[in-house]
Amino acid sequence: MLDHQSILNALQPVQDPELKKSLVTLNMIRNVSIKDSTVEFTLVLTTPACPLKELIIQDCEKALKELPEVQEVKINVTSETPVQKALPTQQSIPNVKNIIAVSSGKGGVGKSTVAVNTAVALAQMGAKVGLLDADIYGPNAPTMLGVEDYQVTVEKRPEGDILEPVLSNGIKMVSMGFLINPGQPVIWRGPMLTGIIRQFLHQVNWGSLDYLIVDMPPGTGDVQLTLAQSVPMAGVVIVTTPQNVSLIDAYRGIKMFEQLKTNILGIVENMSYFIPPDLPDHSYDIFGSGGGMKASQELQIPLLGLIPLEISLRQGGDNGVPILISHPQSASAKALKLIAQKIAGKVSMMALA
Amino acid sequence: MLDHQSILNALQPVQDPELKKSLVTLNMIRNVSIKDSTVEFTLVLTTPACPLKELIIQDCEKALKELPEVQEVKINVTSETPVQKALPTQQSIPNVKNIIAVSSGKGGVGKSTVAVNTAVALAQMGAKVGLLDADIYGPNAPTMLGVEDYQVTVEKRPEGDILEPVLSNGIKMVSMGFLINPGQPVIWRGPMLTGIIRQFLHQVNWGSLDYLIVDMPPGTGDVQLTLAQSVPMAGVVIVTTPQNVSLIDAYRGIKMFEQLKTNILGIVENMSYFIPPDLPDHSYDIFGSGGGMKASQELQIPLLGLIPLEISLRQGGDNGVPILISHPQSASAKALKLIAQKIAGKVSMMALA
Repeated sequence: MLDHQSILNALQPVQDPELKKSLVTLNMIRNVSIKDSTVEFTLVLTTPACPLKELIIQDCEKALKELPEVQEVKINVTSETPVQKALPTQQSIPNVKNIIAVSSGKGGVGKSTVAVNTAVALAQMGAKVGLLDADIYGPNAPTMLGVEDYQVTVEKRPEGDILEPVLSNGIKMVSMGFLINPGQPVIWRGPMLTGIIRQFLHQVNWGSLDYLIVDMPPGTGDVQLTLAQSVPMAGVVIVTTPQNVSLIDAYRGIKMFEQLKTNILGIVENMSYFIPPDLPDHSYDIFGSGGGMKASQELQIPLLGLIPLEISLRQGGDNGVPILISHPQSASAKALKLIAQKIAGKVSMMALA
Repeated sequence: MLDHQSILNALQPVQDPELKKSLVTLNMIRNVSIKDSTVEFTLVLTTPACPLKELIIQDCEKALKELPEVQEVKINVTSETPVQKALPTQQSIPNVKNIIAVSSGKGGVGKSTVAVNTAVALAQMGAKVGLLDADIYGPNAPTMLGVEDYQVTVEKRPEGDILEPVLSNGIKMVSMGFLINPGQPVIWRGPMLTGIIRQFLHQVNWGSLDYLIVDMPPGTGDVQLTLAQSVPMAGVVIVTTPQNVSLIDAYRGIKMFEQLKTNILGIVENMSYFIPPDLPDHSYDIFGSGGGMKASQELQIPLLGLIPLEISLRQGGDNGVPILISHPQSASAKALKLIAQKIAGKVSMMALA
């Protein structure tokens, strides 16, 4: 006899492949209904960017079709992103579930490119995404999203000034670039950096967000310390190029976040190889090769992906149209999309661990 | 009748092509001796890296050979690098004649590559050169010079601890990399940065230097402010790549130094184009093109040179042998040598202006 409990029993052995727990135990199976030989339910994933969605659906269908009474299975997929826990010393941002930092020891390795395209990818997959450009001295994210001429508006509230983020490609965004004229330098010593980062975290009308991506400045100083100490972070993504001088700085960045007890979600290797647009069968390791894999193995940190050096990727950044929008079928765009999915998967694992 | 005064009179019209003043007025002609029809003198250039040395020698010979009594001219070339003047609020480093900062708004554009190779080029041309690695969070210069395992020694003196710089390729060098273990992060807030930079300037046994090259960190913060305010700087070299997001940050860097009243010596465009090693007739503008020239024209700042993206240049940095030593005939090495000469010429102009 087909009833609610027999459906759950059949689904009990099906695990989330990343969380390694039963979908039933994780409360991911809801609204089960049975009509004749048709079973319908809602599969509540832990992220709209679930990289293994298709696999989970297949596993559910397979498990249910082993019941002789089941002829048809209808699965409605939705998601509820889990919320990262805060330490007693940290102050959460209300309704912001997961703060993800994109960092590197060294500048110029493609940190902003990864941050911007991860934000775009997660938004395209249905997540509510914010982007906090924490590179106060060199805010590039507005240029990369084509909104460098925008300004944030400020709302006076009894509890203090609240910034209204700029909306671009479905992403809510704040940046020092919205508060100064283009090309104007921000000549600030460290304590002022700390102040603006706190404001960008806690005095912005972020609304409800699944993910707040933070584009970090290079180095291991004031901004990194402030962020790691004051808000709960889902984790940090470390971007490097394959070359030695970049890897050494990446190691430094990783060790800093380990000391600050911040989760390392993984390593992204950017500018992995160059494919000339007119010679697609040629490939040049301009910045060396294998560095990301080496770091991943030595430090026991996942390698989230390799992004090739494509001229269209750089042009996308310069022209304000991220490559995920301008060239979604390019090798870089595909790599970036996969990286975003892996990040989202790991963030869910952190929250549910 | 050939005498001392007639020689000086004949040389009076010969000008230093950069300083646009007579060599005689500039006291660059010394130790004149006449023996029969042979004139011998010492030409004291303002830098051992004088880019126009050959032209000046030719001009002198031509001017003297117009005197009918002169059959032969012998010129001994030497140099005395002039000393940069300090403002009342600034503290000079004794016997350090010229402090040159290599900066950029954005990280990862090749600042350390330009700083290290400029230091090597000036040392090769006979100048006494120091290199101060001011990138405290990401000290790459020791790796690029193959001395990353070295440590500085500290000498106890009554006036305080004095660091003994590391010697590499004839260059005296200090770096945070010599004070920490490789890969160890320096998790410091701004005021600590200021302290170590002051120490690197004033508590190092620099000895006598024509040029102290400072490899700056990215950004427009504590280190930049400390350096510009506390020591007399001959000027700053701004490194950028041709791409838009890098140029925007370069503009910010230039505006900051203008606000701080620091001379801008010029712009260097790095990673200008990529030539595949197996296809020397192909060239790819991976990071765009023309950015350095555009910035030079818009901001009325000299373009000191373009450096191509060569795999051997990156390998040189990773392997600890600068390209000026490993591949002196490569396009990058030639460009870097010419840039070093132009920097030296402009520094002399600043000091004598």
